[in-house]
Amino acid sequence: MTLSKLPEIMIEPCVRAALLEDLGRAGDITSDAVIAPETPATVALVAREPGVIAGLDFARVAFRLIDPGITMRIQLEDGAAVTPGDIIAEITGPARGILTAERVALNFLGHLSGIATATAGIAASIRHTGAKITCTRKTTPGLRFAEKYAVRAGGGANHRFGLDDAILIKDNHIAIAGGIAAAMSRARAAIGHLVKIEVEVDTLAQLEEALSHGPDAILLDNMTPETLRQAVHLIAGRAISEASGRINAQTAPAIAESGVDLISAGWITHSARVLDIGMDFISGR
Amino acid sequence: MTLSKLPEIMIEPCVRAALLEDLGRAGDITSDAVIAPETPATVALVAREPGVIAGLDFARVAFRLIDPGITMRIQLEDGAAVTPGDIIAEITGPARGILTAERVALNFLGHLSGIATATAGIAASIRHTGAKITCTRKTTPGLRFAEKYAVRAGGGANHRFGLDDAILIKDNHIAIAGGIAAAMSRARAAIGHLVKIEVEVDTLAQLEEALSHGPDAILLDNMTPETLRQAVHLIAGRAISEASGRINAQTAPAIAESGVDLISAGWITHSARVLDIGMDFISGR
Amino acid sequence: MTLSKLPEIMIEPCVRAALLEDLGRAGDITSDAVIAPETPATVALVAREPGVIAGLDFARVAFRLIDPGITMRIQLEDGAAVTPGDIIAEITGPARGILTAERVALNFLGHLSGIATATAGIAASIRHTGAKITCTRKTTPGLRFAEKYAVRAGGGANHRFGLDDAILIKDNHIAIAGGIAAAMSRARAAIGHLVKIEVEVDTLAQLEEALSHGPDAILLDNMTPETLRQAVHLIAGRAISEASGRINAQTAPAIAESGVDLISAGWITHSARVLDIGMDFISGR
Amino acid sequence: MTLSKLPEIMIEPCVRAALLEDLGRAGDITSDAVIAPETPATVALVAREPGVIAGLDFARVAFRLIDPGITMRIQLEDGAAVTPGDIIAEITGPARGILTAERVALNFLGHLSGIATATAGIAASIRHTGAKITCTRKTTPGLRFAEKYAVRAGGGANHRFGLDDAILIKDNHIAIAGGIAAAMSRARAAIGHLVKIEVEVDTLAQLEEALSHGPDAILLDNMTPETLRQAVHLIAGRAISEASGRINAQTAPAIAESGVDLISAGWITHSARVLDIGMDFISGR
Amino acid sequence: MTLSKLPEIMIEPCVRAALLEDLGRAGDITSDAVIAPETPATVALVAREPGVIAGLDFARVAFRLIDPGITMRIQLEDGAAVTPGDIIAEITGPARGILTAERVALNFLGHLSGIATATAGIAASIRHTGAKITCTRKTTPGLRFAEKYAVRAGGGANHRFGLDDAILIKDNHIAIAGGIAAAMSRARAAIGHLVKIEVEVDTLAQLEEALSHGPDAILLDNMTPETLRQAVHLIAGRAISEASGRINAQTAPAIAESGVDLISAGWITHSARVLDIGMDFISGR
Amino acid sequence: MTLSKLPEIMIEPCVRAALLEDLGRAGDITSDAVIAPETPATVALVAREPGVIAGLDFARVAFRLIDPGITMRIQLEDGAAVTPGDIIAEITGPARGILTAERVALNFLGHLSGIATATAGIAASIRHTGAKITCTRKTTPGLRFAEKYAVRAGGGANHRFGLDDAILIKDNHIAIAGGIAAAMSRARAAIGHLVKIEVEVDTLAQLEEALSHGPDAILLDNMTPETLRQAVHLIAGRAISEASGRINAQTAPAIAESGVDLISAGWITHSARVLDIGMDFISGR
Repeated sequence: MTLSKLPEIMIEPCVRAALLEDLGRAGDITSDAVIAPETPATVALVAREPGVIAGLDFARVAFRLIDPGITMRIQLEDGAAVTPGDIIAEITGPARGILTAERVALNFLGHLSGIATATAGIAASIRHTGAKITCTRKTTPGLRFAEKYAVRAGGGANHRFGLDDAILIKDNHIAIAGGIAAAMSRARAAIGHLVKIEVEVDTLAQLEEALSHGPDAILLDNMTPETLRQAVHLIAGRAISEASGRINAQTAPAIAESGVDLISAGWITHSARVLDIGMDFISGR
Repeated sequence: MTLSKLPEIMIEPCVRAALLEDLGRAGDITSDAVIAPETPATVALVAREPGVIAGLDFARVAFRLIDPGITMRIQLEDGAAVTPGDIIAEITGPARGILTAERVALNFLGHLSGIATATAGIAASIRHTGAKITCTRKTTPGLRFAEKYAVRAGGGANHRFGLDDAILIKDNHIAIAGGIAAAMSRARAAIGHLVKIEVEVDTLAQLEEALSHGPDAILLDNMTPETLRQAVHLIAGRAISEASGRINAQTAPAIAESGVDLISAGWITHSARVLDIGMDFISGR
Repeated sequence: MTLSKLPEIMIEPCVRAALLEDLGRAGDITSDAVIAPETPATVALVAREPGVIAGLDFARVAFRLIDPGITMRIQLEDGAAVTPGDIIAEITGPARGILTAERVALNFLGHLSGIATATAGIAASIRHTGAKITCTRKTTPGLRFAEKYAVRAGGGANHRFGLDDAILIKDNHIAIAGGIAAAMSRARAAIGHLVKIEVEVDTLAQLEEALSHGPDAILLDNMTPETLRQAVHLIAGRAISEASGRINAQTAPAIAESGVDLISAGWITHSARVLDIGMDFISGR
Repeated sequence: MTLSKLPEIMIEPCVRAALLEDLGRAGDITSDAVIAPETPATVALVAREPGVIAGLDFARVAFRLIDPGITMRIQLEDGAAVTPGDIIAEITGPARGILTAERVALNFLGHLSGIATATAGIAASIRHTGAKITCTRKTTPGLRFAEKYAVRAGGGANHRFGLDDAILIKDNHIAIAGGIAAAMSRARAAIGHLVKIEVEVDTLAQLEEALSHGPDAILLDNMTPETLRQAVHLIAGRAISEASGRINAQTAPAIAESGVDLISAGWITHSARVLDIGMDFISGR
Repeated sequence: MTLSKLPEIMIEPCVRAALLEDLGRAGDITSDAVIAPETPATVALVAREPGVIAGLDFARVAFRLIDPGITMRIQLEDGAAVTPGDIIAEITGPARGILTAERVALNFLGHLSGIATATAGIAASIRHTGAKITCTRKTTPGLRFAEKYAVRAGGGANHRFGLDDAILIKDNHIAIAGGIAAAMSRARAAIGHLVKIEVEVDTLAQLEEALSHGPDAILLDNMTPETLRQAVHLIAGRAISEASGRINAQTAPAIAESGVDLISAGWITHSARVLDIGMDFISGR
Repeated sequence: MTLSKLPEIMIEPCVRAALLEDLGRAGDITSDAVIAPETPATVALVAREPGVIAGLDFARVAFRLIDPGITMRIQLEDGAAVTPGDIIAEITGPARGILTAERVALNFLGHLSGIATATAGIAASIRHTGAKITCTRKTTPGLRFAEKYAVRAGGGANHRFGLDDAILIKDNHIAIAGGIAAAMSRARAAIGHLVKIEVEVDTLAQLEEALSHGPDAILLDNMTPETLRQAVHLIAGRAISEASGRINAQTAPAIAESGVDLISAGWITHSARVLDIGMDFISGR
């Protein structure tokens, strides 16, 4: 399966806002002062560490919005793995505009590539199992659509995009609603036919109760690999199984080997390290 | 010095956009389905790991925008250190609204507290020196004002807020402008009287050239503590000195002991781990 | 199941934009010229024909945004049936503001009540069956969240809210993808675990092919009641069945009696007549 | 007189918002999953019922905003009459983008064409008289400029565009102001020299009083054709006469034959049925 | 006739944008640094020169948006004349917020009062005639609604608010359309019944031609008082007469004495000097 | 030093908003009615009085946003001096669009050129000294970035762009903080290393106190040339000196001859007369 690009109509407002945030009220006073307007330059976006790329369209739009005379030749696509020194793209045009857009372009590219890299790390560690890595709603405010895309670029699957596209009944919902049965039956009555219901359970007892109400998916929270194995056995294919809690590249294999369909991790969107990508000067003046 | 709060007029649009991002077109279908509208609840925001808090006003605004009937009693202020189990705030009101706003509130609070915590970690490691930790423009698109605030909450100082509030002449500018002398003299001619000029240098030779043009600050990039010491000696109080490159809690003390005024780190804004803060159910129904 | 209200944070931007559209650059020049600022008035929103109410919060927000001194006492809730002469709400406050907000308030209330009424009409005609009436993406640009809410107020169920919350493989997708099998397998590989897949079929032969790929739902397009019956028999509970095409209060019963789970109609959102609701002057001056 | 096009700067924000409403946070997950990015297609927009077209620029902008590689060859202009089967436009380009933009394009085109068709129906029925059909402020929130344009496309005239471009003194204004004389004199004192004054009257007695204050236009509300005839006789060319109330293609001729200058109808904007326009697949892959 | 206030829904977005423009990304770093958060203050807005006030609501909203704890007691209303030293309003609340909002509040108040004052100056000079002073579309981008309001506060009348609320056929239109007759007849055919038509003429010959097509108003451009007198005589009450060109307090009386209904001046909105209003510290700490 | 252009991403939103403000809900009804859509025209922007041009990109963007088929050949650049009759630019394209965009284009061009002209007037009067003219935050709400640019085009320097890019301690700050010493020490502790501190003083005694705390700049408010001379002598190069208060082309030379580095004037942005620039019809039809 190839990665589908985001339509530019979704990307542009976000990049535009970031550029205006950086330009403030006076613009790039350094480049404006120091570099003559007609000076050309060619630069390269270069990986400084191994990882997976995501966000090239955000970078491309940043350069174009600052100066339509800047062209960006992309050498690698989102989802590609890089090693240090790999040239990701070459950019040619007026030097001023390239330097003005540089930081915003790299902020998007580094952030999204960091998420793709984190996702790919987990994905690689569980490749021998049938499980997939998936994300959460623990995303950076304003960037969810982009971060979810980065998860896909890293080989992960997307969980809910918001409060509105699936029912996820969590411990607090169950507590306030007065139990799994009450919560599930109200949920089923309220929703459209294309909405799925997932229920969070902490114990095998809760799991059994939940299963009796026919959920589409079960979130098995903070269980050991051994308990997960029993949970998968109990579920017996009647629902999709998702394991969450303390997932990292070390713990993921054992968890995935329990037979769950999905393992989910908030940190791949909220705490992934930026991927170090630099902009190297090739030629100018 | 106490931390100054951000005016709510700066916070609200950002929180509003994040809530609408999460609500989508159908709103919180889980809470709406499962919890009766009048059900009350009281919950607590609780630290799950040690760190420094930042972003409480973002959380408060999130709850209020979802339901003005929700009140949030803040127990700790931004900038306070927490240990696991510390109650940060108590929230009372309609359970539905509390659960609807929960994730956005925590996304802001965790993200900004993570930055404050990372900053505070470096700040603590260099407390015995005269140096301060400062941030960069490597921030998450759309959140710079908030992330810079979190750096202050963590005891750090702020670097430039954008391309427009100070001149920072970097290696690429120098290369394209044809040298430090050309770049500095053009910069000085172009700017207003309240704008400072900082120049990036990689070597002591460059430093000597830069100093001869009277910059306000010097960015000493990727130098060893020993070279930094020589640089500080050369500068001799004629400019503010800032060290950058590979700063972390381990490397920071030796770098700060070189006598530089500032050490700057991009990762405290772009790669800080979220601080784990949870929302615990206290009572309801 | 009671109707859940939309959070005001979703309603307000929409109402605000409508008011500014009506106020233009000079405001309500008639009321400003003709009515003294301090003049009070009390008016009633009155049903002029039978129907089902939806959109009271939109009206309430319209009056409040024009003048916070206006209070609206709601007598009936969204989803309530009205007969001609029923008082829906009473509004008291400065007469100028009431007249300024009147048209926008009624435009929302009439439009959304019209959709609720159309939905309720179909819902009533199929109450003796197990089928539900559902809507489509054929909504007025900019008002989808509100129109979908009005469908719920009328007793209908919601179909997709956008292109992103479920897979709906239609005839053109199948044609371009090269058949149902190709389309279904690609869809399954691409999506998250909480996304459902629905496939449109025009014939029983297509239905059989579609069923062999395990869709969550089947859209049976433009079939006669008799063919629908055979389709339901073929599906045998393996997928949710939805009938579409030429649904109205006359045709709906026979279609619903075929045993389908859902009947969908675009016209309830795109072509419903406005419900006639007037604003009657009770007292003033 | 030919129909003037709306400047694209007025159309684009509206279409952009509608596309983003439909794309949500994940985009068109069906087309992205099922159709390869490079697959071309050619489709036609085809009338499925007789009517008058309006909104082609809205459709064109929708396709272009999703993919600038899509071209739309328009065969008929806004204002043209169509019969079932007429090809309105042909669209060629990447199949994915065409399917992604389809619904938004058709939602605008169907909605605006529905209004043009309703208007044209009334216009045709009164062609033998000197009267014109005109619209009201009973429009869909957010779409007034577009719906007023559709009325023009259908051969109608536009009434006020908002509260600010003319004075319209209605029954409630008169009641609160304390009579027609008070209302008219205050209005005249308040307004600029390019603003007209229209007064609503329900009886011939009110009409006589209104005329004595020299209004530019008179709104004759809910009068029978016979009373309207007397009203026109009384007005004797001193003001423009507008008849309102229960206007449809059946009642319009008799009303128009009374000699009034205008007949106005809210339903042509708020309750017109969508014109059924489909998108037919011509070739692809 | 009393001046009608603008609804706050029109004022707030404008003031909010101005505050955010001033706060930038770091807020009021001076007040935040120098003044403790709890310090109270009372200040007065004081006229430093004679003039007419306009824009108090803009100032009030500015203070409230920065801190709802600030209260502003207004002593004079928009439209009031002031002499140096007059206290316009007293403001009490947290000192920080008062100083943060000061400049934006004064920028609105000074700008709009300057326009009101310029307008009032002309109005006073022609009080002995039947003429009124009116404005143009030569307004500051983004502030037209506010500047037109300030003209009303100064006792002036409003001309067109935009390109869309009246027909104004100017010299270029006539030249391109091929003459007054062509332009007038096309205009009449195109417009709704509440739209007026004004025609610009430079000579008495053009005036005679224009009058023969029954315009609602005539713009007499750059004529001497003597020619204006002849023009008024020619018009003989058949149209409203407006004189434009080189209007100031010196030239206005002779122009107005020609008998024209209106004299219009662009400079009262685009080139009026700000009215000097200061903020005096009364008490604090 | 040449004037740096503003990036178009900063200009466009501002021009777009101004065009929509003028188009309202019906667009340019005059040009639409009177001029056939295909009619071409060529016009020239012509200076009607001597001055300095600023804002050509705003005009260019206005024409392009209305119709991309309009081309504008610029003959003079921003910052150029003009004499009456000078052709600034020639514009060719559809006549309708040219007339529709005319007023917005001229409103920007006249306003910004007026500011540039006022600035250049002061600059010329002090050319024999070492002083520069600078602006303030007394700008038109929403246009600060553009007005500051116009000051640069007129040969002036820019002061603060907002409350956030430098510390400016004014009389009220000093009064509330409890003196210069307290204010300065708090300011120094609070700010980043690239932020400068300026202090306002009214007397030489205050100046001496201020200097003892090492400010970067001193604002000498409302001093006579003689006192300014003494102030400059006292400062002795330890800080940048700025004189403010009652600056105009008459008073500026004597003030500048005192030896101050800068003289600042609010009126060059808030009260500059528009530069009279007209649009002359060259050919059409």
